[in-house]
Amino acid sequence: MRLSEMSKEELLAFKNDVQKEYDSFKAQGLALNMARGKPAAEQLDITEGLLTAVAKSEDCFDSDGTDCRNYGGLDGLPSAKKLFAPMLGVDVNELIVCGNSSLNLMYDAIAKFMLFGVDKESKPWKDCGKLKWLCPVPGYDRHFLVTQTFGFEMINIPMDEKGPDMDMIEKLVAEDESIKGVWCVPMYSNPTGITFSDEVVRRFAALKPKAQDFRIFWDNAYCVHHLTDTPDRLLNLLDECKKAGCPERVLMFASTSKVSYAGAGVAVMAGSAKNMEYIKSMLTVQTIGYDKINQLRHVKFYKDFEGLTAHMEKHKAIIAPRFSAVLDALDSEIAPLDIAKWSKPNGGYFISFDAMAGTAKRIVALCKEAGVVLTGAGATYPYGIDPEDKNIRIAPTYPSVEELKLAVKLFTIAVKLASAEKLLGVQR
Amino acid sequence: MRLSEMSKEELLAFKNDVQKEYDSFKAQGLALNMARGKPAAEQLDITEGLLTAVAKSEDCFDSDGTDCRNYGGLDGLPSAKKLFAPMLGVDVNELIVCGNSSLNLMYDAIAKFMLFGVDKESKPWKDCGKLKWLCPVPGYDRHFLVTQTFGFEMINIPMDEKGPDMDMIEKLVAEDESIKGVWCVPMYSNPTGITFSDEVVRRFAALKPKAQDFRIFWDNAYCVHHLTDTPDRLLNLLDECKKAGCPERVLMFASTSKVSYAGAGVAVMAGSAKNMEYIKSMLTVQTIGYDKINQLRHVKFYKDFEGLTAHMEKHKAIIAPRFSAVLDALDSEIAPLDIAKWSKPNGGYFISFDAMAGTAKRIVALCKEAGVVLTGAGATYPYGIDPEDKNIRIAPTYPSVEELKLAVKLFTIAVKLASAEKLLGVQR
Repeated sequence: MRLSEMSKEELLAFKNDVQKEYDSFKAQGLALNMARGKPAAEQLDITEGLLTAVAKSEDCFDSDGTDCRNYGGLDGLPSAKKLFAPMLGVDVNELIVCGNSSLNLMYDAIAKFMLFGVDKESKPWKDCGKLKWLCPVPGYDRHFLVTQTFGFEMINIPMDEKGPDMDMIEKLVAEDESIKGVWCVPMYSNPTGITFSDEVVRRFAALKPKAQDFRIFWDNAYCVHHLTDTPDRLLNLLDECKKAGCPERVLMFASTSKVSYAGAGVAVMAGSAKNMEYIKSMLTVQTIGYDKINQLRHVKFYKDFEGLTAHMEKHKAIIAPRFSAVLDALDSEIAPLDIAKWSKPNGGYFISFDAMAGTAKRIVALCKEAGVVLTGAGATYPYGIDPEDKNIRIAPTYPSVEELKLAVKLFTIAVKLASAEKLLGVQR
Repeated sequence: MRLSEMSKEELLAFKNDVQKEYDSFKAQGLALNMARGKPAAEQLDITEGLLTAVAKSEDCFDSDGTDCRNYGGLDGLPSAKKLFAPMLGVDVNELIVCGNSSLNLMYDAIAKFMLFGVDKESKPWKDCGKLKWLCPVPGYDRHFLVTQTFGFEMINIPMDEKGPDMDMIEKLVAEDESIKGVWCVPMYSNPTGITFSDEVVRRFAALKPKAQDFRIFWDNAYCVHHLTDTPDRLLNLLDECKKAGCPERVLMFASTSKVSYAGAGVAVMAGSAKNMEYIKSMLTVQTIGYDKINQLRHVKFYKDFEGLTAHMEKHKAIIAPRFSAVLDALDSEIAPLDIAKWSKPNGGYFISFDAMAGTAKRIVALCKEAGVVLTGAGATYPYGIDPEDKNIRIAPTYPSVEELKLAVKLFTIAVKLASAEKLLGVQR
């Protein structure tokens, strides 16, 4: 029965029952974490071979003779470029292979654009007065924190199952020169799990921004992270930008943080050859080079892009059941009550849960009180402010399936309790 | 016989003889490189055990239980802090352990100070108008390139065997609020090889800068890189700054680039606990964490700071003969002619060679023409401009001793030839 169709008495009875369930859960003293998109230990275990992929001094040489133990190689090993270029669908001269963090690459790119401009001809953003940034929501909290830190006014852009609201983006960027960029997680979006439609990608390429130094930060973090045998596909924005005559508009990012090791992987950045030359001209001031031995480990472990995608099948086998455990519980416990909506993604690391407006904070607090940590309510919005207080990001990968079943059971109880409270007008 | 005491005829005959030697060297078609302070292959080989120090999934856990394969650990593994804190003589809460490049840490620190200020109370340097930076010379070209890129006017500060000219520094910083910092390689300085005297260190701590946000960038790159059994010792600037009541004045940097692997090592940053807290508050926006597995490799390979210093003895055994090969040749070939001065360092990676004024560029060009690449003349000065055109940085570590003997022989010939030309007033 739909919760909204219950009489007050039915609702009160429902709430009392749920409260009892909640209290008994709380008594169990759980300590589980569904807050971050962290790989499970089983996922990390399948990468064990990476550790000894470069085991001897004589293994430390790239195919071109580069001694990876020594200085040099600013923009990445040639063999690593060959491995990762197909991941983003670019040529090797449109890619640089860097350190362990794509977030760091995005932060650094914005820091450089702030201080030096997006190219040799443009004014540094720091000298452009008021700065604004478009933030499709719900989105990735660490993206938002970067642009917040650099002082951008962040503008929420609603997302649907095809991507961000392009009507809104087209209008805003055409009118406002202070809008310098947009965050995108175009495939298996964090957290909604959707993949941008071909039309959305083409409309990004066709934008007519008033700011000539407008840049699309295309964080393709989940490009090989499929959960089903019918994966989504994403149009290549760099290709589309070339066709549209604006190849410099997009900067693409990815990493192996959820392919090999989170924190000990390899991050890459891609874009037009001109953009990459400019980035390299700045990078050479910043560092002599990134960790080439770790790049070489990845090359030797995965061999080629086919090897890497085969490895992703193993990840899928480990995490797909975790997603199912959450989705099954939501389907059986929450769907009949008609008090929430949630995503059923074909890939990525998250399930996006939209509760009744005004209940997200309460649900997260109830879970926390009973020992299950979720991503903070509001975190998926700029400044941590979800205007409707309804979105919750569920990260099902880290706990075991057994733990997850417990955690999601508690979650459904919290959702029921918060929803009943809301409908009953309980003041908290 | 001193070259300056030769008659014109003697000089001409000398020059002709040297020219013949040069021409026969040139005919050999050498291809050697003494340009950069790169470790030799033999040095890299002694670190082989690092590659498999973490070989299995179960090896990936730090002593506190941290799974180094997963996210987290922004400021470095506890065990890595314990390993590296004695290297800079600081407490573990005064140190963060980061990625593979200390240059990157210095660049990032300045970028952050530009955009956000040196602490929560200070104005971002970008909003401070004209910016200046003190550069003890000769110094490290990559330092100078960083401050040049950020738009600082760089001021040359002469160095002697005790360190930079502190009279000059004291006067300048007391008068000029636009001076925001100074580069220092305080131990086995790049390239002069000297170590700052206790008095110099104390005077750095006792500075009364007009700019409250003046910072000393203390790049202790060679702190464990001794070449003799009677190593230099360096007073700890952080300790001295604490005594002087200005613990926030110094930021210290070091790395294992020339301890383990150049490019696949670990870099560290140290300073007052307050400074480190501030840096961490900014780092958390930039990255989720550095490569903890590589940090753990270092911990397992070196065990403790004693293990690390024992490892440095092996480096010494490999590179000390290279320094001797260069110094012996200079002593026998150049000293009697009294046309140059050079350093005889107790550690570090360089020999600093002061030729006759106006001949450095010519010497480097002559060497290059005959197949030996040296650091570009002028590189040891800001903007690449050596006002007297006399300093040349010799980096003897990378070639083998045999190659080095050839290369330095050519170098002495080039010095002789350029000096004779100079004295004869040959126009080039």
